[in-house]
Amino acid sequence: MTAADTLLARPLRLDSAAPDFDAQLTQRLQWSAATDAAIEARVAEILADVRARGDAAVLDYTRRFDGLSVTSVAELAIGADALRAAFEAIPAHQRDALQEAAARIRRYHQAQLDACGRSWQMRDADGTLLGQKVTPLDRVGIYVPGGKAAYPSSVLMNAIPAHVAGVPEIVMVVPTPRGERNPLVLAAAHVAGVSRAFAVGGAQAVAALAYGTATIPRVDKITGPGNAYVASAKKHVFGTVGIDMIAGPSEILVLADGTTPPDWVAMDLFSQAEHDELAQSILLCPDAAYLDAVQAAIDRLLPTMPRRAIIAKSLNDRGALIRTRDMAEACAISNRIAPEHLEVASRELRRWEPLLRHAGAIFLGAYTSESLGDYCAGPNHVLPTSGTARFSSPLGVYDFQKRSSLIEVSAEGAQTLGRIASVLAHGEGLTAHARAAELRLRAEGGA
Amino acid sequence: MTAADTLLARPLRLDSAAPDFDAQLTQRLQWSAATDAAIEARVAEILADVRARGDAAVLDYTRRFDGLSVTSVAELAIGADALRAAFEAIPAHQRDALQEAAARIRRYHQAQLDACGRSWQMRDADGTLLGQKVTPLDRVGIYVPGGKAAYPSSVLMNAIPAHVAGVPEIVMVVPTPRGERNPLVLAAAHVAGVSRAFAVGGAQAVAALAYGTATIPRVDKITGPGNAYVASAKKHVFGTVGIDMIAGPSEILVLADGTTPPDWVAMDLFSQAEHDELAQSILLCPDAAYLDAVQAAIDRLLPTMPRRAIIAKSLNDRGALIRTRDMAEACAISNRIAPEHLEVASRELRRWEPLLRHAGAIFLGAYTSESLGDYCAGPNHVLPTSGTARFSSPLGVYDFQKRSSLIEVSAEGAQTLGRIASVLAHGEGLTAHARAAELRLRAEGGA
Repeated sequence: MTAADTLLARPLRLDSAAPDFDAQLTQRLQWSAATDAAIEARVAEILADVRARGDAAVLDYTRRFDGLSVTSVAELAIGADALRAAFEAIPAHQRDALQEAAARIRRYHQAQLDACGRSWQMRDADGTLLGQKVTPLDRVGIYVPGGKAAYPSSVLMNAIPAHVAGVPEIVMVVPTPRGERNPLVLAAAHVAGVSRAFAVGGAQAVAALAYGTATIPRVDKITGPGNAYVASAKKHVFGTVGIDMIAGPSEILVLADGTTPPDWVAMDLFSQAEHDELAQSILLCPDAAYLDAVQAAIDRLLPTMPRRAIIAKSLNDRGALIRTRDMAEACAISNRIAPEHLEVASRELRRWEPLLRHAGAIFLGAYTSESLGDYCAGPNHVLPTSGTARFSSPLGVYDFQKRSSLIEVSAEGAQTLGRIASVLAHGEGLTAHARAAELRLRAEGGA
Repeated sequence: MTAADTLLARPLRLDSAAPDFDAQLTQRLQWSAATDAAIEARVAEILADVRARGDAAVLDYTRRFDGLSVTSVAELAIGADALRAAFEAIPAHQRDALQEAAARIRRYHQAQLDACGRSWQMRDADGTLLGQKVTPLDRVGIYVPGGKAAYPSSVLMNAIPAHVAGVPEIVMVVPTPRGERNPLVLAAAHVAGVSRAFAVGGAQAVAALAYGTATIPRVDKITGPGNAYVASAKKHVFGTVGIDMIAGPSEILVLADGTTPPDWVAMDLFSQAEHDELAQSILLCPDAAYLDAVQAAIDRLLPTMPRRAIIAKSLNDRGALIRTRDMAEACAISNRIAPEHLEVASRELRRWEPLLRHAGAIFLGAYTSESLGDYCAGPNHVLPTSGTARFSSPLGVYDFQKRSSLIEVSAEGAQTLGRIASVLAHGEGLTAHARAAELRLRAEGGA
């Protein structure tokens, strides 16, 4: 018996009826997003350096941090041909899985585009036209982590919505520590429609995409996950370019009424916990015996997991099995947490789903394991974390589009609108605004 | 003759055919967004203080910065009754103008909600359901500047989309230096559906909304313009709450083919310039004689403007009259600039509009002065500035909604999806993800 086999994973047991439940839950949810001042300062330096020196700075950092002995940024370019070659070189079952997943993700995001991503117009009775023109971004950058956390599925999830939105140029950056290129990541880039890639990572990659260098083109928006340096760099360049949300540790919350096999739920909790020691897995159920059964399943299944050390630490430090008064209360607690992933392991889906207001993605029914959504159901797996589902949304086609208002006021319309605008502009002391409206009035303008 | 009457407004004349045109344009567009380290540090202190001490800190700063001699934050509350009373006390023509503008803004944003803000679902042949559930935010905060730049129209433009989105609680904060409350701002809040307001401003107001205090409720998102302290505070709290874009100086770009009266165009340039000495007004036209005519109109009209000093400085420092080779080139230059406001002063709207890809709002035709859009045409006047229209959009109903993905995999669907997910999860070394999918396969799961 090795040390690993003696691991125990014991998520905190809580009861919503306990007097200190709120405080205990609050404490368990806490996660220090404290930004490290040293990282911030280092990132600010790197950004300024890349902005000033361009390729030379990117080259320096890449040689130093990734241990590459290249002499130009051009050598770090990974062209469309190299992406295709990577795709052709991987085993057929992986090729098929990537393509099937991509097809489903594409179909879902196409439906999203059709449902909410189209230009629209309306006309007033006086002929005035109002509307909104929806257009894709010109060029976007996708950050893909390298090393241990190199996930080809993230490439699909970031690049496909951009592609469906109609973005003509999708530039991927991915660090290749000591020159190691992940063939599945490159293959996924090929499948997802990435235009070209660079073997650059960290804050220097974010800077290159935000400001542009001689070799790496400036983009309009940067999406994709990364370590603390990448997150800090993205936050810094926000405004110069668009960014997606800064992701915190991943989370799952399972609402169970006791009708789903405990092994299934235990494995779903594991699949979150195996990401990261900071990941959070929470189970809410009105039935204490069911919580016991899931704990028993955890105990039984944990030794079979290759990443059991991470799983155990995550569940012990941040996990919770919570007994609630009933399912309605479980839904209310879930809304308070606003989890990234929310599984409803129940047979009364139509009863509970309408009560759920804040979540990145809602997985309904026993068959809908989060992992199906992570890879291939179709919806995006880039989701708001740390309670930000209160105000933000999954990555989608809309993140790769922008809108321009359209206004065409008819001569007739200018008479009505001009009088309203004139009163309000004078009320704000903005005389030129008022005069501009008044010049269009027939008695005045003389056109 | 006073000193003000000797003011000259001479926007830079440029010619797109000049060899140094690109460099000159780049220089004219430059605007130092350099964050002031002293402001940043002060804001960080204020945020930390409000987070730690809540109401007591808000009270301290409000007494100090706004010169108010109140003894509790409760005294700073402005309830729905006070908002209504302000509305009833203003002159009838202002009440009517506010209501008519609000009705048009509401109608436009309702159309926006119908066009792109609804939940949707789709089903696979195997019964798997996919979709997205769109829900309003629970509570939002609207920042409204006080003092000189107190704009009731901003209240309408921020609060109405939130109201149309279905946000149940809209909290306004507005500084009232030396106790001065702007009656039009309060009246606009009443018309726009603001739930309640607080006479608090600056970084302390942003902090109170982001973290909550005993008296001021924590919100999910903060929108609205403000000074450098407010902008810095919003950037700091981004992630804890949602924020809208950080606005730079306002800009207008006019594309003219020479068919619009020069006085109208001159006044439109003024209406941007009168906001702020940093505001930018640019006119592009292939016809040099027309540019001369607009300059003559500027010279003639400037002395009649109460805010002529601001207008002159803005036009002299940041304005430009640019002769282009033709209208198509003018459209290309406009795309490069990605202006906040874009007027197309032409009779060939259907020819030029499709060429325009990046702009916050596009005002089509001679009758569509920007000021009509600022107040009452219907579309939002909160627009992306400083070239950020490349990747961001006008404030809209979508900013007050968020989306949750919905996934309900059928027993049948779990067979197909489980096999794909299993391959990809093993490829990423995430065994629990793979096992969670495999447990749902019929041969395995046993449910």
